[in-house]
Amino acid sequence: MDEILSTHPKKDTFDLELLRAAIDAAHACASTCATCSDACLHGEDAGSMTRCIDLDNQCAAICRTTADILSRPGPNGDSWRAIVEACIAVCTECAQECAQHAEHHDHCRICAEACRACADACRALLDAAN
Amino acid sequence: MDEILSTHPKKDTFDLELLRAAIDAAHACASTCATCSDACLHGEDAGSMTRCIDLDNQCAAICRTTADILSRPGPNGDSWRAIVEACIAVCTECAQECAQHAEHHDHCRICAEACRACADACRALLDAAN
Amino acid sequence: MDEILSTHPKKDTFDLELLRAAIDAAHACASTCATCSDACLHGEDAGSMTRCIDLDNQCAAICRTTADILSRPGPNGDSWRAIVEACIAVCTECAQECAQHAEHHDHCRICAEACRACADACRALLDAAN
Amino acid sequence: MDEILSTHPKKDTFDLELLRAAIDAAHACASTCATCSDACLHGEDAGSMTRCIDLDNQCAAICRTTADILSRPGPNGDSWRAIVEACIAVCTECAQECAQHAEHHDHCRICAEACRACADACRALLDAAN
Repeated sequence: MDEILSTHPKKDTFDLELLRAAIDAAHACASTCATCSDACLHGEDAGSMTRCIDLDNQCAAICRTTADILSRPGPNGDSWRAIVEACIAVCTECAQECAQHAEHHDHCRICAEACRACADACRALLDAAN
Repeated sequence: MDEILSTHPKKDTFDLELLRAAIDAAHACASTCATCSDACLHGEDAGSMTRCIDLDNQCAAICRTTADILSRPGPNGDSWRAIVEACIAVCTECAQECAQHAEHHDHCRICAEACRACADACRALLDAAN
Repeated sequence: MDEILSTHPKKDTFDLELLRAAIDAAHACASTCATCSDACLHGEDAGSMTRCIDLDNQCAAICRTTADILSRPGPNGDSWRAIVEACIAVCTECAQECAQHAEHHDHCRICAEACRACADACRALLDAAN
Repeated sequence: MDEILSTHPKKDTFDLELLRAAIDAAHACASTCATCSDACLHGEDAGSMTRCIDLDNQCAAICRTTADILSRPGPNGDSWRAIVEACIAVCTECAQECAQHAEHHDHCRICAEACRACADACRALLDAAN
């Protein structure tokens, strides 16, 4: 499929590759966190995974919103930075939590990777915009 | 209807009234921004309201996510602060934009009020948590 | 606060009171389901409440989206019916599940009420549109 | 990255490949519709693209929610079908609208493709579940 961002009337005001990378990483992280939350909940030790489930859900919600806002790159205000910063914060916190369960749960190991990748892609986008 | 927050197992870890006020203000702001965006789009001067439509949509998305995260008060991590701060930022920016159109558009006047009310309720919640 | 729906350029194409009632009920249900999910997860019997947590989360997500779409009443397509029907379906299923735990969990009792109220408000809106 | 769905405790209750295809198509469609909406809004003929903007926004919201719910495959209730059916309905309606502008707007051409691909992936998932 062609890259839709390259057809946007304001395409010269943003870095298409960094933007696409951040949107894709945020979607991947949203979906991965949702699955990790669900896998924790349906696992045998759900009662001891509540903090992981909580952070997975928060991270999924914020990544989903970040992907939506980044997919609308026309606006030139400042608020998009605030949601990207919130995304980096929650991805970092969720990655730390999931990493603690990585040995026992493959879904947590995979989720920690997705969170770190999303935080990195968001940080690269912010850095380029400053 | 009874207040569901008062039945939460961790109800002693949060200020129920401030939390309820912030959730309600975020929902009201999300809905008001969505309607303002739609009213701008279907008005006669849609072409000159694009910045207002953009900010309305961003504000609606972030308020919706904030309301969802605040409605799950069990977690004791730090990420909830990041989304509440993003909510204050976008509400403030959207209120400023809508205020500029308040004379000509009743929906922008009402929306600016809802944005300011949400920013205030979020700030009160953050202040009490520090 | 003034009613923003009454300022919409297409206000004559929808029933303002039924629309407002459905938006408010969907927001109330989204928030109530999110809190019920979180309360179940942090309760002593989390392991036996997984189906309730699942349905709460599904219901919260669909109600949130329904409220957003109903808050943008300009479009005159047919897709809004599909999401309102999905909202009625999930509210009905979630109400049945929560009702089974109503004796032991006040949050489930309150949540079942919110789900039924949302299903009713959505059905009233659909009926009037046919 | 490893496939997180294959680590889910209930992985034998769903078709992993069809599920992954539907989640990915829903995310791609959500992002594409959001960009198409934004590109329409910032284009020269925004005033004549309001129906396309409306449907893009509805489609983005429903696809986003569908992707979230499908990413949590543990539940065995019926409500997930209702949101997948709503997703097919809105993708079909949005594809028809965007196809009408495909000659003049590359973003509408790309968006129509993404909508059809998402509807197809959702239908394949539903068909296999019946």
